[in-house]
Amino acid sequence: MASWEDGVRRVVPYTPGEQPKDLHIVKLNTNENPYPPSPGVLAALSGVTEDSLRRYPDPAAAVLTKTLADAYHVSPDQVFVGVGSDDVLAMSFLTFFNSGKPILFPDITYSFYEVWADLFRIPYQKQKLNADFEIVRNDYLKENGGIIFPNPNAPTGVLMEKGAVRDILRANPGSVVIVDEAYIDFAPEGSSALSLLPEFENLLVVQTFSKSRSMAGMRIGFAIGSEKLIHYLNDCKYSFNSYTMNQAALAAGKAAAEDSGWYRETVRKVIATRERSKKELSALGFSFANSQTNFLFVRHEKAKARDLFQALRRAGIIVRYFDSPRIDDYLRITIGTDEQMDILFDFLKSNL
Amino acid sequence: MASWEDGVRRVVPYTPGEQPKDLHIVKLNTNENPYPPSPGVLAALSGVTEDSLRRYPDPAAAVLTKTLADAYHVSPDQVFVGVGSDDVLAMSFLTFFNSGKPILFPDITYSFYEVWADLFRIPYQKQKLNADFEIVRNDYLKENGGIIFPNPNAPTGVLMEKGAVRDILRANPGSVVIVDEAYIDFAPEGSSALSLLPEFENLLVVQTFSKSRSMAGMRIGFAIGSEKLIHYLNDCKYSFNSYTMNQAALAAGKAAAEDSGWYRETVRKVIATRERSKKELSALGFSFANSQTNFLFVRHEKAKARDLFQALRRAGIIVRYFDSPRIDDYLRITIGTDEQMDILFDFLKSNL
Repeated sequence: MASWEDGVRRVVPYTPGEQPKDLHIVKLNTNENPYPPSPGVLAALSGVTEDSLRRYPDPAAAVLTKTLADAYHVSPDQVFVGVGSDDVLAMSFLTFFNSGKPILFPDITYSFYEVWADLFRIPYQKQKLNADFEIVRNDYLKENGGIIFPNPNAPTGVLMEKGAVRDILRANPGSVVIVDEAYIDFAPEGSSALSLLPEFENLLVVQTFSKSRSMAGMRIGFAIGSEKLIHYLNDCKYSFNSYTMNQAALAAGKAAAEDSGWYRETVRKVIATRERSKKELSALGFSFANSQTNFLFVRHEKAKARDLFQALRRAGIIVRYFDSPRIDDYLRITIGTDEQMDILFDFLKSNL
Repeated sequence: MASWEDGVRRVVPYTPGEQPKDLHIVKLNTNENPYPPSPGVLAALSGVTEDSLRRYPDPAAAVLTKTLADAYHVSPDQVFVGVGSDDVLAMSFLTFFNSGKPILFPDITYSFYEVWADLFRIPYQKQKLNADFEIVRNDYLKENGGIIFPNPNAPTGVLMEKGAVRDILRANPGSVVIVDEAYIDFAPEGSSALSLLPEFENLLVVQTFSKSRSMAGMRIGFAIGSEKLIHYLNDCKYSFNSYTMNQAALAAGKAAAEDSGWYRETVRKVIATRERSKKELSALGFSFANSQTNFLFVRHEKAKARDLFQALRRAGIIVRYFDSPRIDDYLRITIGTDEQMDILFDFLKSNL
């Protein structure tokens, strides 16, 4: 090893789901939305001018924070935007989890949490989901350096009741509590922790344009919290990269955020397909927790998940398989269009 | 202070140059290119499809790294891309400067270096430029945890000879040496440290689309180095955010990188205006080092920089003033179009 390598930060990076180039594949592996974004988004991209390309974007991304503030009835000073919710979450780990005390998150959850903790050398303790894949509220009432969990959780799809979220916040005035709501728009209305913001200065709610708004390709995520939290987060962001949101993302994001009707309609379609898929998969011998997201996390009574994953792959249907303890018997299946799901069901009917 | 604030990372962020909304202002404060990017860039943005918006982008940004690799005659595995060179540099600080030993950079330089070091708690020692605002090669031959400097340096505009860069690399096999070449395309051909790459595995050269390619608004920066360096950098990047380059940036970046003729022509025009500006400003009583960039760092024999900055501002001409030791008598003036510079010269002729 060359001597310059002594000072290199060694990490084991997160492995994202595959992005195959073949567009004929039925792609049910990365929880993308099968429907297009608001037509305003393409129009906004075509409207980007030479002058705005030439110039630095607004570092405060005001056009986007303002539109989101209006949509969620908060002050623009309560909104932070980033390059996907991963950027928002990475910056939040860097900003808020510096006490030296271990942070808490579930053992079965978004696998990036562990990666960020390792990257920034943040100690952590994983808390075991119960046998029904539910987050156990009481596990988050002990001393900690911060708390993060997705709600609904991924890859399980299970939603925590808002009462339990409130209990966790009440017990933790000394920590920042991050509720990662990447999938919240697919859950019943009123499930979001956003309504708890007036009560808790230390609550950060993170959401994304990647799922419900069909814009994974534009990398837009956001956080809403108290002005104090957002101020700290911006200080770290401005110490990392002044201008994270390019002119195209700002324009496209604004157009999407102004057209809430569009995404609510696509979400309605995805939910209808999800509920139909639950019935189909049940009839085929699969079991699963009650997902409130745009994916199902399923186990078959007979077929091994890994074998099924590979058989589907050979048939041009890609789902997600995690080779990890407690979940290596499961597949995570993104809800696609009805037509895509029928291809999946037909394959399973013939091959199980 | 609330108890949750104990674990918050406190930093003093970098202050970017102002981005006024009034388009009638003569904006010579953030080193943007006054000419538009390649026409292919707008076309690429209009060509972004609904399907690519809906899907995650390629995390490896292969379409862009491949085009850059071809343009610079290196392997795609030697190229890293990020959200502007700030993102590339931030990630490089995080990845490479972990030895615990102080890193070295000039006292008068890009002020973000100090901000990144503070953010990541990296010790550093600033090395004094000499009276002619040159980087002193011998200051970089002592023990260190890493070296970074811009070449040409900013805000001075001064270029270091490649022989001196090589000397620094030869003396530092135990550190990563980052040459930040944001302005290199405005320097004489052959000035880049890229030609030293075959000799030094620990050399990272960072460049940007923001200046010569007129694309500050799209946030595209890149690094070229040994495959080993790029591999480590990617590991940290994938531990921070899998997908940093959105579909619009990938498409626009590819179009720009394929049209080198376009940016070389705009650079030629900027250089011609820069050389004419040197003469005009000289005749007006300004002195300056010999800038090889798209800006001039000037001091007037009589007028105080701060007063001049404010007078220009009132006249609708924005330049950059740094209220810092050793340079508080200077203004940094971006090279605009000939017409913009004439407005500046006319004002100065009437008011000095």
